[in-house]
Amino acid sequence: MKIFNYFLIFFLVATQYFAQTEITGTGLHDNIADKIVQTALSEWTGYKWLGELCKIGPRLSGSENSVKAIKWAKSKLENLGADSVWLQPCKVPHWERGEEEKALLISDKLNLYKEIKVTALGGSIGTGGDKLIAEVVEVHNFDELKNLGDKIRDKIVFYNVPFDNTTINTFSAYGKAVKYRVYGVLEAAKFGAAGVIVRSVTSKYDNVPHTGVMLYADSLKKIPAVAIGLQDADFLSDIIELDKSVKVGLKLDCKNLPESTSYNVIGEIKGTEHPEEVIVVGGHLDSWDVGEGAHDDGAGVIHSLEVLSLFKRLGIRPKRTVRCVLFMNEENGSRGAKAYAALADTSREKHIAAIESDRGGFSPRGFSVKTDSLTLNTLRSWLPLLNKALIDWIKPGGTGADISKIKNAKALIGFVPDGQRYFDLHHSAHDTFDKVHPRELELGSAAITILTYLISEEGI
Amino acid sequence: MKIFNYFLIFFLVATQYFAQTEITGTGLHDNIADKIVQTALSEWTGYKWLGELCKIGPRLSGSENSVKAIKWAKSKLENLGADSVWLQPCKVPHWERGEEEKALLISDKLNLYKEIKVTALGGSIGTGGDKLIAEVVEVHNFDELKNLGDKIRDKIVFYNVPFDNTTINTFSAYGKAVKYRVYGVLEAAKFGAAGVIVRSVTSKYDNVPHTGVMLYADSLKKIPAVAIGLQDADFLSDIIELDKSVKVGLKLDCKNLPESTSYNVIGEIKGTEHPEEVIVVGGHLDSWDVGEGAHDDGAGVIHSLEVLSLFKRLGIRPKRTVRCVLFMNEENGSRGAKAYAALADTSREKHIAAIESDRGGFSPRGFSVKTDSLTLNTLRSWLPLLNKALIDWIKPGGTGADISKIKNAKALIGFVPDGQRYFDLHHSAHDTFDKVHPRELELGSAAITILTYLISEEGI
Repeated sequence: MKIFNYFLIFFLVATQYFAQTEITGTGLHDNIADKIVQTALSEWTGYKWLGELCKIGPRLSGSENSVKAIKWAKSKLENLGADSVWLQPCKVPHWERGEEEKALLISDKLNLYKEIKVTALGGSIGTGGDKLIAEVVEVHNFDELKNLGDKIRDKIVFYNVPFDNTTINTFSAYGKAVKYRVYGVLEAAKFGAAGVIVRSVTSKYDNVPHTGVMLYADSLKKIPAVAIGLQDADFLSDIIELDKSVKVGLKLDCKNLPESTSYNVIGEIKGTEHPEEVIVVGGHLDSWDVGEGAHDDGAGVIHSLEVLSLFKRLGIRPKRTVRCVLFMNEENGSRGAKAYAALADTSREKHIAAIESDRGGFSPRGFSVKTDSLTLNTLRSWLPLLNKALIDWIKPGGTGADISKIKNAKALIGFVPDGQRYFDLHHSAHDTFDKVHPRELELGSAAITILTYLISEEGI
Repeated sequence: MKIFNYFLIFFLVATQYFAQTEITGTGLHDNIADKIVQTALSEWTGYKWLGELCKIGPRLSGSENSVKAIKWAKSKLENLGADSVWLQPCKVPHWERGEEEKALLISDKLNLYKEIKVTALGGSIGTGGDKLIAEVVEVHNFDELKNLGDKIRDKIVFYNVPFDNTTINTFSAYGKAVKYRVYGVLEAAKFGAAGVIVRSVTSKYDNVPHTGVMLYADSLKKIPAVAIGLQDADFLSDIIELDKSVKVGLKLDCKNLPESTSYNVIGEIKGTEHPEEVIVVGGHLDSWDVGEGAHDDGAGVIHSLEVLSLFKRLGIRPKRTVRCVLFMNEENGSRGAKAYAALADTSREKHIAAIESDRGGFSPRGFSVKTDSLTLNTLRSWLPLLNKALIDWIKPGGTGADISKIKNAKALIGFVPDGQRYFDLHHSAHDTFDKVHPRELELGSAAITILTYLISEEGI
């Protein structure tokens, strides 16, 4: 026991010693991390930029606003002094909501005719100038739908699946409910349904509908699909209880236009010692066509731009190449991500890490990482420095939709801010600049900049 | 080296084993922690209660609203099924802002006469029906003030000390700037100043003034004191630059009334095995007389009430006594805290822990603890359970103004939510119910309830 104790003490002292050495060895890093945080928090450059980006308005792929956003981002990268800035083309879908989207609840039995607020799901077809009027059938999962089978023919299927508010991780709750928005049309079309209404996938109990992508299959009939707010979803459910033959009249002007050419916006600071080793920092430039895409993913755009900007403002010349990639079309096709990954995985450069911010601009909490255990330990050894920007942990886990397409990166890293408010506003009119807090946003920029800096100086 | 490796492996396995045992041993705890989180997040009971409390309006000690709040809290404790509920009397100061508070900036040189928005600091005297008109002298610290010495006689001293926005810990930034609000009058009165204006101690750049306590000395003349918003502070500073003899006219109706009797509101669930061992959970029921005291400290009141409520809703009968103490008069005297501490430190009960929530109702991040290292380790061993409510760390550090008066408690524990938004609203008209997020508030209740439960079951 005594020998064990000696070794235990030796082990503890050794651990202490190596930890000390590491931190002492990073005295310079310590200093730079402090400066990064102080500069971000005192200058609020990114916050001002987010105001500019949000003023353009929502930026759906193929839209005029998306073109404006591309020009804006390119000029930001040029003006901050990136070594090179370029546009990487990609074909994107071009969907338009159109002028009008209306829904009327019709219950002859209850003598009730009430307009309800809807938002077409992204990609939905319109109702062809006419109104689609059909009975509504409520279901709570795909099994119920399958059991109904032919009974839903020519009906509107109402997926009334609540966001599980008891889950602490709102992204898990979203993941569980969103399949009805994405695949609901597909499953309903198999049985000849005429349309789909989904309960918005949101944590906020009000009447603002939340849009998002949905999928059609070439082999099945395309039917229109909308989301409604939670209050109307509960109301509709109550009415169905009272009148099984309640109808909804739906009028949508949505159009799927021919694909157009769009671009990832890319800028980089060349590495001084290992220019061929690339660290990507990225978010997506497109947004849904409601709100302003402030948190989703204006925040990620700003975080990524500000990494380069903070390097330049502080005169940091990274050993490895630091590249900001603002992906186009994350929301409805990930075409930008696919284009960039194709380049990354075939180029002679080596992508050592890719960091994505696509969970909003709230207070930093951690990084979620996909890598080997040795690299994970290296990243974790930097926690005392990352903690200066409020990073409390680094865990293995999911990273981000855009970077996850890059197969050859040694580490894929997702920035994880506090997530309690995110799905209140995600994909809705709530996602506006005033919902972003300057300190919280800037701490995100600082956290990602410190991590990028450490990877660029120390390698992984 | 080989032997060392064996021992190292043994050590690691042993650590693993004991950690496992602990978690396995807490299978029941695990289950209860889950239920606490799920119940808080699904029922939002505390959030609804906060809405009720905020509807009463601000609750400064001695005010009519504070009496309403005491009645409200007492009835909440009775209705949730506490074993006993009582009021502990304490004498409190009774200060009233009065009807009018006005300030006029007067620059004859610039031909400028502009009203500026002020809020009297808590405890300030009024201007006695008249206007106090005097030249303004700007200072940035106490040394500057002392160097001016007699030159500030009969002048209004303007403490223009910015909140340090580069500090990541907003409570540290507050601590550095707030001394000018608290002691500024005292220092200025030493040199015969006529009044004091302070730049609001806030992280939010707008024109809303933030109040807070200030101190007089019996040996010095009492002079009126106000706070102004950051925009007006910068404006005033600019004007002083252009006209050194700029004056401010100040009219305040504040009154210091005779002390009145008020109360701490206390309720408890008796311990089944060690009823004499007490765990206090508390926040303060009083608030400043602007806004609604939603985050400061409505949130702490709700957290504390909800600990008892969640125990009752889930049928948990704690081994040790769990006592909710809603302290009166934290904001301007801590009389409730002193009264409770006097009782706690002399009673035959043993206060094993006191947990305070007085940093707002934002997402939980950690607990800051004053205790011995053994107890700290015990608390830390519960992190896997506390993490279910978003608690990422337990660190030694400051705890809370109310509980810190209890000298004999084994552990004093401060709940630490995310602090980036807190000083935007603290002590101002911004501190209203709509700034509180239901999930964030309820996770705070859940975090404190889990910790209270573990202390009550395991002891410390």
